[in-house]
Amino acid sequence: MPELTDIDRQDELDSLIHEIRDTLARHEVHEDDGGTDDHAPPIEDLLRDQDLERLARKIEPLHPADIAKVLESLPQNERLLIWELVHSDRDGDVLLEVSDSVRDSLIEAMDREEILNAASSLDTDELADLAPDLPEGMMQDVFTALPIDEREKLRFVMSYEEDTIGSLMDFDLVTVRGDVTIEVALRYLRRMESLPDHTDKLFVVDRDGLFEGVIHLKTLLLNDPETIVDEVMVSDVVRFHPEDSARDGADAFERYDLVSAPVVDEVDRLVGRVTIDAVVDFIRESSDEERLSQVGLTEEEDIFAPVRKSVRNRAPWLAVNLVTAIIAAQVIGLFEGSIERLVALAALMPIVAGMGGNVGNQTITMIVRELAFRKLGGGDIRLLYGKELKVALINGVVWGGVLGLVTFLMYQNPGVSAVMLAAVTLNFLSAAFFGVTIPIVRTRLGRDPALGSAVMITAITDSGGFFIFLGLATLFLL
Amino acid sequence: MPELTDIDRQDELDSLIHEIRDTLARHEVHEDDGGTDDHAPPIEDLLRDQDLERLARKIEPLHPADIAKVLESLPQNERLLIWELVHSDRDGDVLLEVSDSVRDSLIEAMDREEILNAASSLDTDELADLAPDLPEGMMQDVFTALPIDEREKLRFVMSYEEDTIGSLMDFDLVTVRGDVTIEVALRYLRRMESLPDHTDKLFVVDRDGLFEGVIHLKTLLLNDPETIVDEVMVSDVVRFHPEDSARDGADAFERYDLVSAPVVDEVDRLVGRVTIDAVVDFIRESSDEERLSQVGLTEEEDIFAPVRKSVRNRAPWLAVNLVTAIIAAQVIGLFEGSIERLVALAALMPIVAGMGGNVGNQTITMIVRELAFRKLGGGDIRLLYGKELKVALINGVVWGGVLGLVTFLMYQNPGVSAVMLAAVTLNFLSAAFFGVTIPIVRTRLGRDPALGSAVMITAITDSGGFFIFLGLATLFLL
Repeated sequence: MPELTDIDRQDELDSLIHEIRDTLARHEVHEDDGGTDDHAPPIEDLLRDQDLERLARKIEPLHPADIAKVLESLPQNERLLIWELVHSDRDGDVLLEVSDSVRDSLIEAMDREEILNAASSLDTDELADLAPDLPEGMMQDVFTALPIDEREKLRFVMSYEEDTIGSLMDFDLVTVRGDVTIEVALRYLRRMESLPDHTDKLFVVDRDGLFEGVIHLKTLLLNDPETIVDEVMVSDVVRFHPEDSARDGADAFERYDLVSAPVVDEVDRLVGRVTIDAVVDFIRESSDEERLSQVGLTEEEDIFAPVRKSVRNRAPWLAVNLVTAIIAAQVIGLFEGSIERLVALAALMPIVAGMGGNVGNQTITMIVRELAFRKLGGGDIRLLYGKELKVALINGVVWGGVLGLVTFLMYQNPGVSAVMLAAVTLNFLSAAFFGVTIPIVRTRLGRDPALGSAVMITAITDSGGFFIFLGLATLFLL
Repeated sequence: MPELTDIDRQDELDSLIHEIRDTLARHEVHEDDGGTDDHAPPIEDLLRDQDLERLARKIEPLHPADIAKVLESLPQNERLLIWELVHSDRDGDVLLEVSDSVRDSLIEAMDREEILNAASSLDTDELADLAPDLPEGMMQDVFTALPIDEREKLRFVMSYEEDTIGSLMDFDLVTVRGDVTIEVALRYLRRMESLPDHTDKLFVVDRDGLFEGVIHLKTLLLNDPETIVDEVMVSDVVRFHPEDSARDGADAFERYDLVSAPVVDEVDRLVGRVTIDAVVDFIRESSDEERLSQVGLTEEEDIFAPVRKSVRNRAPWLAVNLVTAIIAAQVIGLFEGSIERLVALAALMPIVAGMGGNVGNQTITMIVRELAFRKLGGGDIRLLYGKELKVALINGVVWGGVLGLVTFLMYQNPGVSAVMLAAVTLNFLSAAFFGVTIPIVRTRLGRDPALGSAVMITAITDSGGFFIFLGLATLFLL
């Protein structure tokens, strides 16, 4: 394989993408004209083929991750045209790099033969990543095409959930026995044609495959070749189990600045390793998923997704909000009589609800962040309630006071101002209370504390805010 | 230094933290009792000292990142007690690892001597990270304590903004000349006592310090020692400039699975390197900052921050929302006459506003994600407007239809239902239009497209939603 070109500057890649789009757009226009001029097509075809060949030559030397980015930046039709130009040896690597929605569209355009061919170029752990996106039945064929021991490994990796160490693991282990000299280890390495990527250390195992420690490549380089590996290996190192949480694993990589770490089973037998590149991908994907899930979206949608798919992707969140909005409307409906008598209430009630929502979302964000960071004990939770309620009380009095003043300027009615102050303070307190409670209860139930929390707290501060404000007004003003 | 213990399991660290808190809490209680029993204090003190000594022994062997986590998990007073127990050699490393708000509280508790001592144990690039948090005037002392060439480096790193490659860079370079043999390079390495962390490759430079390429440690290990470095080095590698965006750099690390990469100046002279651990920290911090900034918070606050600080931290966002809420109230105020005549409008208007806000936030999230990923050309932007408006139109008709039906069940008034359908559709279209426009305009103006976008879109869909709904109702129903 010739050396690949990595494009480290965002703008270079952007300009390549623009060149591709311009070239393809030119031919699209010409093809539309084609119908009016019978002589044109052959020349057009020729030009088109030349242009495509030129693009193919530009794409050829790119790193698979760059090809992936090019494909992700193109609308469906153009994407498939360029996909055709990618050399079939590279298909597997590119499929690993693209986003889920793009991967779906590329696999749809491939036939059985092409998919099997792409799969055959991948490692077991990479196949496991790809498997969920393959057409039904296809996985069995991929399976059958593997040697027996690879099948075992594939079954093993695929048996772990997406958010475990098992799913991040690979099998590119370089192991060495502890009782040999560095000289012997170096000779052993030189017999290998290459070392797996991210090999910063060798794993030391005994004759039964039990994990004993690691020896860094730099230790091999810096020490006297006569030294026995056992004497310079590090045995107290971070190690994972396949069922450990991927998130805890990522934290450990971050805290200890790891490049690779061993994965061992319950009897300390070395079964695989995790490398920093898998961890970085995991961190990025988790934060992307989190951002999308806050507004009820999934990774399935990109900007080139068909309108139909987007409408479907956005529906669940809108449905939930429809229900909470109707509940809030019912709450207001209870007080229609009060609003008829004092119509200013209608103008002021959204302020109480909206600002309560802000306070609730601020509290939830702080708590979710803290929960991601560590387990909260009983003392912490009491402290959190105490603190958030105090902050809410102060904020309620301060901002409620400001609003009372503004309201007085608008309506010259001190009663309305007093109700405003009281309602804002009470709604802030309720927002703080539920802002602490919702994520903590969700965590206790084993759920993701962030997911859907914003929707819940907004429902509470809206309906609750309307109820508190209109209720107080009805009691004291009418 | 004895070997450090890394705690890879979240629960082990949690239980250590609980032990610390229990121990400290015990003494707090006893001290309160102290006043009633004159004979107790000396024994109490003795027990307390024993306990503290025991804790100190437990903390001693921990990795600085674990000590940081312990400190972050303790309330202010207990945190400072434990900080006292940390051996002063470790102070600098621990300060680097803790969060900003905790760092502030620790530095406040240190005297001049301790700070200078902690600073003296750090590398130049680490000092640069710490510098903004040091008390005023202190930095000059730290500066003076450095050798001349280190001062130069420190000035150099500190001259770069937080979000550039320059701020992620370190100077732990191992360079080698291209015209020597691998044998010579290996001998040179063996003369060094250790290699810097994350050294997966050596940087090849010519006699003027110009960057020529890299040679991986594994290449050194696998090849014949007689080989000349030039022949096996890789020259087409990702390289950065100090003024490049840190975000683009992080993308490149992720795409090409890098462990380290060279930083060169405008004439290709090697000036430093970036390593994956700095990149991972950057990614984590950026996503943390982003999450907080969505609700107007800064990293300065943690759950142990004093109430006063929290109130201040949360004020700006509440102030902005106060203004937008008052504007929305004014819009409603315009239509008080209509609401008086048809009070159902008051109950229904928050539905139109709220669901519009959802649509706007979904659109903004999609666009911000796309903008983070690549530069959008004119064609993309037209495509985006077209698609988002289509999705909004379909969603508007669907959900507006559902709401029209619900409204009819509530009020048996077909006119109200028709206005509902029309208002929801129009507000969805406005939400989609501004949901695309706001982040794109912000990007054009060189601002962060995400920051404050949610507040802006909600202001538009609230005030706009109220105006559209009440306006249509006034025109057609009254």
